[in-house]
Amino acid sequence: MKFVQSTKSFHSLLALGLITCLCATAQDALPSWNDGPNKRALVQFVTDVTRQGSSFVPQDQRIATFDNDGTLWVEQPMYTQFAFAIARVKAMAPRHPEWKQQEPFKAVLDGDMKAFAASGERGVVQLIMATHAGMTTTEFEKSVEDWIHTAQHPRFHRLYTECVYQPMLELLAYLRANGFKTYIVSGGEVEFMRPWAEQVYGIPPEQTIGSTMKTQLETKNGGPVLMRLPAIDFVDDQAGKPVGIDKFIGRRPIAAFGNSDGDQQMLEWTAAGPGKRLMLLVHHTDAAREYAYDRQSSIGKLDKALDEAKAKSWVVVDMKRDWKTIFPVGKQ
Amino acid sequence: MKFVQSTKSFHSLLALGLITCLCATAQDALPSWNDGPNKRALVQFVTDVTRQGSSFVPQDQRIATFDNDGTLWVEQPMYTQFAFAIARVKAMAPRHPEWKQQEPFKAVLDGDMKAFAASGERGVVQLIMATHAGMTTTEFEKSVEDWIHTAQHPRFHRLYTECVYQPMLELLAYLRANGFKTYIVSGGEVEFMRPWAEQVYGIPPEQTIGSTMKTQLETKNGGPVLMRLPAIDFVDDQAGKPVGIDKFIGRRPIAAFGNSDGDQQMLEWTAAGPGKRLMLLVHHTDAAREYAYDRQSSIGKLDKALDEAKAKSWVVVDMKRDWKTIFPVGKQ
Repeated sequence: MKFVQSTKSFHSLLALGLITCLCATAQDALPSWNDGPNKRALVQFVTDVTRQGSSFVPQDQRIATFDNDGTLWVEQPMYTQFAFAIARVKAMAPRHPEWKQQEPFKAVLDGDMKAFAASGERGVVQLIMATHAGMTTTEFEKSVEDWIHTAQHPRFHRLYTECVYQPMLELLAYLRANGFKTYIVSGGEVEFMRPWAEQVYGIPPEQTIGSTMKTQLETKNGGPVLMRLPAIDFVDDQAGKPVGIDKFIGRRPIAAFGNSDGDQQMLEWTAAGPGKRLMLLVHHTDAAREYAYDRQSSIGKLDKALDEAKAKSWVVVDMKRDWKTIFPVGKQ
Repeated sequence: MKFVQSTKSFHSLLALGLITCLCATAQDALPSWNDGPNKRALVQFVTDVTRQGSSFVPQDQRIATFDNDGTLWVEQPMYTQFAFAIARVKAMAPRHPEWKQQEPFKAVLDGDMKAFAASGERGVVQLIMATHAGMTTTEFEKSVEDWIHTAQHPRFHRLYTECVYQPMLELLAYLRANGFKTYIVSGGEVEFMRPWAEQVYGIPPEQTIGSTMKTQLETKNGGPVLMRLPAIDFVDDQAGKPVGIDKFIGRRPIAAFGNSDGDQQMLEWTAAGPGKRLMLLVHHTDAAREYAYDRQSSIGKLDKALDEAKAKSWVVVDMKRDWKTIFPVGKQ
């Protein structure tokens, strides 16, 4: 009976160890978040929807959607995708001698952002069409991969994929560990994110949603290819975010995370469902470690959504106060 | 020591039982498929890509796409979605007295399919717009659910959701048990499939891809709703299937299943990737138990894809020869 006893003890210890381990996981899942009401609200929400009770949500309905620019990674001093487009113009310029005289390309090649700004929305569209279309999906993917693995952020001097927010990486992992399916729902072009989102965020291509270009099936070298056409298919921003969520996911999220007025409708759409809901905005308040901007910013403007968040008691992350670290440790 | 011995024996038996159980699963996963080269090809493919070796495919890349109409369920004597549209016209007619004089609605209300056919593609589009748009996504979903839970197939006198192919249900489950992510990629409208696809096929909304209507975010009763607009957003058929796969999944399938020329490009797109691939067509050859049709059929025409399948040694299921049963047992 000694053996039986010791076996039992061993298993009891194991069970106890397991329980201790689970508790530790729950408590330390967000180590880069300072203790306070916001961290507590996150943990409380996850506890509520995963624990049997009136707020319980079945696992297949635990959908969480995250904006990307300014929510998961840096969007200042310009959207990363815009930096990519500029790099592409420079790389493609030798094959386009006419660009030396032609706006908005001349401005981009001269590094004259004021002149580029003067080309307005038409300039932006021309830039995107020239750099994001007229090639196969495979060719475009390669151009993204080549660039994203070498290009550095001008201020932080690290890869853009290392200018991601450590507290949000922890939040993504914490949600997934609790049975959530995590999605990106970004205004950025989807094929610009898919080549690296899985490695960086743990979010696979099929859960990465963004704006799309029209594509067309063609034959090249005897095989089928998808050509990226110079035409916008879908803009996944503002009122487009609920449309994209419905189109691509077909379920309403129970948690949504953003940082700008472009995310307001996604958070409203999430809030409008039944049961427990979590709506969160990242407020950029840390000029020293990252950036401080909101109502007056041309990039990531946070104005109306901030008012609504306060009125409706959504979680508003104060980056300076709530986050112990900004970027992944060991890479800063 | 007797206890230890018996515990060990128990665990050995358990382990053995488990192994036996796993083997049985592999061998009997497709009980409704008759033994023969097609069944062997399916099992061989799954074995090859899941077993360590030169053909191994990591789990996250095991994407399998299935056409719906004629591949997973009956599409004769008319597409089920068309039967739904007719039912909707009849249900909505009291609110549309003008339809009594107006084609194609008059033809539908009179049950005059010849007159309806005379209204051509324009008639079909008018029918879809009238019955599938002008309401919120939630309202449309409810109309689908109400109908699909009661409407019966005119020949088999069972629910349409029971006119699904038992061998294909087994194949879906077999693939999922081997780490595949199974998708529907159908020409049918996505919101017509999502309300029941999970229950019937085990395929959740986010893995159900189809043609889409344009939707628009609006405010109704103080809350956000998505209105279905009378405009086609995307046609997920023929050359649209690879486009849809790239847009919604962002990965190329390693296995694709169809039954008509509308699936040809999806199978070609799947075949064009590297490594082991499985392309399968369901050939409707069983007039007694289901239907027999191919090159001359106006619904589910299988002509060019059948030639290509033979030329390229894709799996062509002979329904009459390969399938022991057609519909789920106990419901026939």
